[in-house]
Amino acid sequence: MVNVRVNGDRLMTSLMELAAIGVTDGGGVTRLALSDEDRAGRDLLSSWMNEAGLEVRVDDFGNMTGLRAGKTDEPPVLLASHIDTVVKGGKYDGALGVIGALEVIRTLNDNSIETGKPVAVVNWTNEEGARFEPAMQCSGAVAGRFTREYVYNRSDRQGIRFEDELRRIGYLGEESSRPLPASAYLELHIEQGPVLEDAKQAVGVVGGIVGITWIEVTITGQSDHAGPSPMGLRRDPLVAASEIIQGVERIATMEDDIAVATVGRISVEPNVINTIPGKVVFSVDFRHPDGEVLNDQAARLEALVAHVCSERSVTGEVNRFWASEPTPFDPAVVKAIRSTCTSLGVDYGELWSGAGHDAKYMAGICPSGMVFVRSKGGLSHCEEEESSAEDIEAGVNVLLGAALRLASRKR
Amino acid sequence: MVNVRVNGDRLMTSLMELAAIGVTDGGGVTRLALSDEDRAGRDLLSSWMNEAGLEVRVDDFGNMTGLRAGKTDEPPVLLASHIDTVVKGGKYDGALGVIGALEVIRTLNDNSIETGKPVAVVNWTNEEGARFEPAMQCSGAVAGRFTREYVYNRSDRQGIRFEDELRRIGYLGEESSRPLPASAYLELHIEQGPVLEDAKQAVGVVGGIVGITWIEVTITGQSDHAGPSPMGLRRDPLVAASEIIQGVERIATMEDDIAVATVGRISVEPNVINTIPGKVVFSVDFRHPDGEVLNDQAARLEALVAHVCSERSVTGEVNRFWASEPTPFDPAVVKAIRSTCTSLGVDYGELWSGAGHDAKYMAGICPSGMVFVRSKGGLSHCEEEESSAEDIEAGVNVLLGAALRLASRKR
Repeated sequence: MVNVRVNGDRLMTSLMELAAIGVTDGGGVTRLALSDEDRAGRDLLSSWMNEAGLEVRVDDFGNMTGLRAGKTDEPPVLLASHIDTVVKGGKYDGALGVIGALEVIRTLNDNSIETGKPVAVVNWTNEEGARFEPAMQCSGAVAGRFTREYVYNRSDRQGIRFEDELRRIGYLGEESSRPLPASAYLELHIEQGPVLEDAKQAVGVVGGIVGITWIEVTITGQSDHAGPSPMGLRRDPLVAASEIIQGVERIATMEDDIAVATVGRISVEPNVINTIPGKVVFSVDFRHPDGEVLNDQAARLEALVAHVCSERSVTGEVNRFWASEPTPFDPAVVKAIRSTCTSLGVDYGELWSGAGHDAKYMAGICPSGMVFVRSKGGLSHCEEEESSAEDIEAGVNVLLGAALRLASRKR
Repeated sequence: MVNVRVNGDRLMTSLMELAAIGVTDGGGVTRLALSDEDRAGRDLLSSWMNEAGLEVRVDDFGNMTGLRAGKTDEPPVLLASHIDTVVKGGKYDGALGVIGALEVIRTLNDNSIETGKPVAVVNWTNEEGARFEPAMQCSGAVAGRFTREYVYNRSDRQGIRFEDELRRIGYLGEESSRPLPASAYLELHIEQGPVLEDAKQAVGVVGGIVGITWIEVTITGQSDHAGPSPMGLRRDPLVAASEIIQGVERIATMEDDIAVATVGRISVEPNVINTIPGKVVFSVDFRHPDGEVLNDQAARLEALVAHVCSERSVTGEVNRFWASEPTPFDPAVVKAIRSTCTSLGVDYGELWSGAGHDAKYMAGICPSGMVFVRSKGGLSHCEEEESSAEDIEAGVNVLLGAALRLASRKR
């Protein structure tokens, strides 16, 4: 079994064939969920799954599952990702995980390997949330995080309902076809960050998905004419905000190498060149694998805002308005991935995912884990997104090896 | 002559009567240039000027001049300001300077004083530039800074031309009626800042109008997902900008107590909560009485941007796109105002104007100066704008005294 390897050429050929559906002028892909391009991609995938001997089942959210039987009728090991993209996204992103899973099946077929548990390929509907918000909608629904009514009534910017589009493209199936239950869940994805490239590692063993805290900070001062107000008598909320933005960076870097903090959005009133601002509102996005660290960081921010506002005679409000708990992956699944890397001699690193994935919701209902493939320049969700054929082959071999380990394990 | 004083009650009564034209629900005034309210204000002013024995002449920009003859036919001493306001402006602003000048004439009449040179009241058209940009348009035109064609073709946001509105309200006069030539120019205005209040002084002797440099700073980094990008590998232009904004404040405060610097406008791309910004553009407004200091400050900003950008691996562009030279007032006029304050026993301070006024352009063609009256809370261009009756009376007595000194001086 240790000598089984995927067919790298076949893998890349299929990946590029799928990437031609929705191809953009800049060499990327626009294949929004439930669009005509998504339907064409699904049809192609479906034909490949059939050719690989898989019967394709479509559930009530359009999630596609192709099951390969095992020696037992235990719940399958799911190999899953998504083929929908953002506008002007890349060729890899989720498509790599789906085509990688298909290549695992093809390789098992080539080598006539009968696994203990069944192994299944899953294509999740609307992971991106780029057309119908929020993201990870249909894995979330399967995992019990969203009701069917909620998902069906999501609308895109033209007011078109999710359910209507799902029916229109011919992918509205049965609740009984959901990929449940599952013995384990594996998701292969590009890293979407620069960590593996920086460490010169092809593959990442993902420890979990970081927790996120979203905070809105509002600083109110006194708007005034830029001319007649001496510096010492000003109550300028933008200068206060800039001091706090510096502090947000410090709060992340003082913690460890993993914590990240971002101020992505800022608005200034009245935003006029010759007027001292009266009000500044900005966002803070804290991410960390440890929920206690996230709480500490929010508390440090609150203290910082209070301090700066008091020094500068402005007022500050700190509103934690959304949080996502950290999701550690199942230690046995993570270990299966790590052991596979070691036995294959793949250069790997250990990291947490800073972005959300379907694996986050699936981790709530079965043992789950993820494999990352190095991203060139750390870029993703853009036409320049790229991973090398060598890294992709290494990642899919890790997916194959980990699937074999998990499929052979006794319950 | 030293015992002549204005009539404070009459002054405030006229000021409040004018303030009723265009009064807002919040107790302020909206009297945009060349609007029906401006016409009504002009008609009232005109009737008061006539009652005070002044013949009102209207020039080709609608500027109104009421001349009181002196012993000689030398050019007059002009006492000038404007009755137009911004939207939801205050009751004082320029109106104080016009009604104050009228009160000076009334007082001269009451006391049957014959001045050496003639003394004139001037109401400038469209000082604010709130309806027809730019500000100080019609003093600028009289001083040769703008052509008549330029002024006539300014349009408001509805596309209505300046000339058409000037004709409509009946205030399109003759070029020969411009208030030229002049022996001296005096402008009374509210301070629009907190300096006098902070120093507990009723009146300000204005040394000049500060120079202004407007700069646009563009910082370009690398936009990326807020999750998977470790702090050490980021090129975040907003964190860089916040460091520079802190530095802008430092550049002003390290200079002296007079320098001011403001970042009023900022835009961030893509301005999304979970995305590291890729580009930040912000404005810097430097003001100082000394042109060399302004140049030093711009150079310091350039060095700071270069330093921060190099440290943070982002790129910076600094574009000085507009400048207004400092305008020192005539030393003899400033001395006449200062001496009047001293002889009247008025608590006064010396300061420069951080905002533009018609006096800026008039200083280019005749000896000019300004008198400031303390503003409550430093507020202006808002409904809350206020100066006390005592401070106003003191300011107009200074205007009277300085006018008498300048009108009696030999050429």
